[in-house]
Amino acid sequence: MGKAAAPKKNWAKKDWIYPHRHLLGIEGLSKQDITRILDLAEGFIEKNRQIDKKYPILKGRTLINLFFENSTRTRMSFELAGKRLGADVINMSVATSSVKKGETLIDTAMTLNAMHPDFITMRHPESGAVHLLSRKVNCSVINAGDGSHEHPTQALLDALTIRRKKGRIEGLTVAICGDILHSRVARSNILLLNAMGAKVRIIAPPTLMPPQPEKLGVKVFNDMRKGLKDCDVVMTLRLKTEYMENSFVPSSREYFHFWGLDEEKMSYAKKDAIILDPGPIIRGLQIDSKLADDIGRSMILDQVEMGVAVRQAVLEILSHTLQTK
Amino acid sequence: MGKAAAPKKNWAKKDWIYPHRHLLGIEGLSKQDITRILDLAEGFIEKNRQIDKKYPILKGRTLINLFFENSTRTRMSFELAGKRLGADVINMSVATSSVKKGETLIDTAMTLNAMHPDFITMRHPESGAVHLLSRKVNCSVINAGDGSHEHPTQALLDALTIRRKKGRIEGLTVAICGDILHSRVARSNILLLNAMGAKVRIIAPPTLMPPQPEKLGVKVFNDMRKGLKDCDVVMTLRLKTEYMENSFVPSSREYFHFWGLDEEKMSYAKKDAIILDPGPIIRGLQIDSKLADDIGRSMILDQVEMGVAVRQAVLEILSHTLQTK
Amino acid sequence: MGKAAAPKKNWAKKDWIYPHRHLLGIEGLSKQDITRILDLAEGFIEKNRQIDKKYPILKGRTLINLFFENSTRTRMSFELAGKRLGADVINMSVATSSVKKGETLIDTAMTLNAMHPDFITMRHPESGAVHLLSRKVNCSVINAGDGSHEHPTQALLDALTIRRKKGRIEGLTVAICGDILHSRVARSNILLLNAMGAKVRIIAPPTLMPPQPEKLGVKVFNDMRKGLKDCDVVMTLRLKTEYMENSFVPSSREYFHFWGLDEEKMSYAKKDAIILDPGPIIRGLQIDSKLADDIGRSMILDQVEMGVAVRQAVLEILSHTLQTK
Repeated sequence: MGKAAAPKKNWAKKDWIYPHRHLLGIEGLSKQDITRILDLAEGFIEKNRQIDKKYPILKGRTLINLFFENSTRTRMSFELAGKRLGADVINMSVATSSVKKGETLIDTAMTLNAMHPDFITMRHPESGAVHLLSRKVNCSVINAGDGSHEHPTQALLDALTIRRKKGRIEGLTVAICGDILHSRVARSNILLLNAMGAKVRIIAPPTLMPPQPEKLGVKVFNDMRKGLKDCDVVMTLRLKTEYMENSFVPSSREYFHFWGLDEEKMSYAKKDAIILDPGPIIRGLQIDSKLADDIGRSMILDQVEMGVAVRQAVLEILSHTLQTK
Repeated sequence: MGKAAAPKKNWAKKDWIYPHRHLLGIEGLSKQDITRILDLAEGFIEKNRQIDKKYPILKGRTLINLFFENSTRTRMSFELAGKRLGADVINMSVATSSVKKGETLIDTAMTLNAMHPDFITMRHPESGAVHLLSRKVNCSVINAGDGSHEHPTQALLDALTIRRKKGRIEGLTVAICGDILHSRVARSNILLLNAMGAKVRIIAPPTLMPPQPEKLGVKVFNDMRKGLKDCDVVMTLRLKTEYMENSFVPSSREYFHFWGLDEEKMSYAKKDAIILDPGPIIRGLQIDSKLADDIGRSMILDQVEMGVAVRQAVLEILSHTLQTK
Repeated sequence: MGKAAAPKKNWAKKDWIYPHRHLLGIEGLSKQDITRILDLAEGFIEKNRQIDKKYPILKGRTLINLFFENSTRTRMSFELAGKRLGADVINMSVATSSVKKGETLIDTAMTLNAMHPDFITMRHPESGAVHLLSRKVNCSVINAGDGSHEHPTQALLDALTIRRKKGRIEGLTVAICGDILHSRVARSNILLLNAMGAKVRIIAPPTLMPPQPEKLGVKVFNDMRKGLKDCDVVMTLRLKTEYMENSFVPSSREYFHFWGLDEEKMSYAKKDAIILDPGPIIRGLQIDSKLADDIGRSMILDQVEMGVAVRQAVLEILSHTLQTK
């Protein structure tokens, strides 16, 4: 195979500029914003499959990955995205224990800001911490997951996965199953799927359902078989046991029996329905092991691939915002 | 904003070459050495404020950050400095517990040396460890803090901060307050400020004052108000509790009452006096929270910005030393 | 010294292509394969001694260092090798405790694979884990040590060290001493030295000798003086106490008395015999401290230097395999 061609330049249409300085959540993004990010990501998917994956549009810029929670997968995805675009990437992992006051987060933010990064990605256990950060710094902030609030790049990579497999998002029926209550992934996905015109269902036991779920613009189900009926897309979520102080679920075995996705429950969805999971998957808890490995239906690895491309797209659109600020 | 221009080439005057292979301390540096490093750093301040912060004069060189103590802030500052200059940067963090003999430090040093780095920055809990390292390796060694001995890049960045705000260092009265006994920052600053012709005062409780402090070439005060009187610059220091085996201070509250910098004590300094602190700041202990955030007087974030620029300047001058060796 | 010339292009002869996609072990490599890797490494030794160590033939490629065991030295060597060749390098360290099932390793492997790395180096405490990985991914896998199985780049760097000092490997008598039972280094070295035509001896106490050692194609000794007699090369190995559940050795002092390499035992080897040790060396246990520091005979630091060069050579040959796949 010869030297890879550079991605085509006409991904982003000239008449559109991303209207924000940050990516703090899906909330506030228009259908057009989302569509353009996904369009831009398409080019990076191809580029990342080449031998030469370098596309150094961010040469000379600095990306800091500021992680207050462990997440090797997401950190690596952002690190790869930044490096393949030519940025200087610095990782900063902070043990949550040493950060007990919001005040300290601000001091950390201000210190990093003084080093003139162009981008900070932040993961933090508290909802809203990323907003706080974004008001204190001059650079672009990307939410890499804040508490149970939002995880926008996950929703974007899920959308890209769905769009590539189904050809569209509008009009599809998507069921999100499991621990909706604690899930920033669910929240961001609900916002995105609604913005794109999909029909969203959430399926969860009462203890893992957020209060007043109807207000999210979704159909609410307390039964997997009913909720999965005629769905195009099924998203499973892991149990966020780190956020669970009391026992939300009686036992793993019982949880899987009622709420774990298996062949039998999946048979209620459409025949060509696909399965997404943000990972890491816990086999035999949120999903049956064989189903997770069914490459015809399980999109789990496609999601990982889309993740790098979507993050490259987000870094690129934010870099244009910076240049025009 | 367009593509950033490269920094001007005439920072370093041609008739001067840094006369050492390492930067182990401020001790041994002349007024001219210090001035030229600060002059060189000025260019990097501007470069780091551009979109394109890359100035790859160290392309093909290797920088190893060898940290035997945790210090995310200083490690990131060196990492950024190296990467923005185009060097390959490798981080090595060593838990102190695994290094109990000087012998092992030498083995680590010799092993790293065999990988042909061009620069090693080292932070180590023992005074003198960096000198030991420098005698065992072929590359340039930069002291990133060794015990209570020296932290030369901190003193240089403090000097740059002062010079930019006050236009000069010579003739200024600078008060360093707090835990002088355990502070490598105080020691390096005293050496630098004396070399540059400033008048240095140290203010500390008797338990945190080094033995025979007058020999350092400073005026010694045991009272904040008297020590701060008519100062141009006030440097606060955090309590290095990790080095304190016995109780050096009765209580945080009492310490702040007598030794913490607040509005009232600060009123004894000159009206246009500035405040420096090497950070991380512990609000309400060494400094009042509001004072720390007073951007007219507090230089804390300027110091962080100067830090990257000073480290770039140090790497550059040491790289010339290497090429002419 | 002026700007370094690029390494000569004629290292690798055109009529030879490395016949594998991975480097999982020395097993399966021919004498020619080994010779060509060592030849290629020679050029990198020279390049790494220059000021400009960059030789960016892997620009745009991605190397992931996946370490399930701590090994700062080996990780840094691969990281440097990758960066000096221009690759984007990502480190992933995994606490062994979180990986208890082979299944999880596969999930980790598949996730990384979906990010399109070109190379994964892996260190893992279980023999065979690297083979498992290699069957699940599309990229080249390099074994950075798997359990007590193989550590091929260590054997290659040892061979390069011997060849440069002795001018050849064929016909030399090499004694490997110490904990043969748990040593992947011993195993890879025995395979390589036999393939290259050296005469291999192993010397160990009965408790640290593998079962049926004669089948390895070596001469077996239970006495240091007899085993070292007239040797050209002596390799010492550290005690892998992390793999020892019961007491394999009575005491450190007694072990050193019988099995530690000292001046007296070394006198049985040839006068110009050299000493190799994969490190980290434990002075006074596997080797006398003075002997380890005897630069005329101890090759310990040469081995570290050869390590980076050999890993660059391995990355280069695997990159050609990738391009022609």
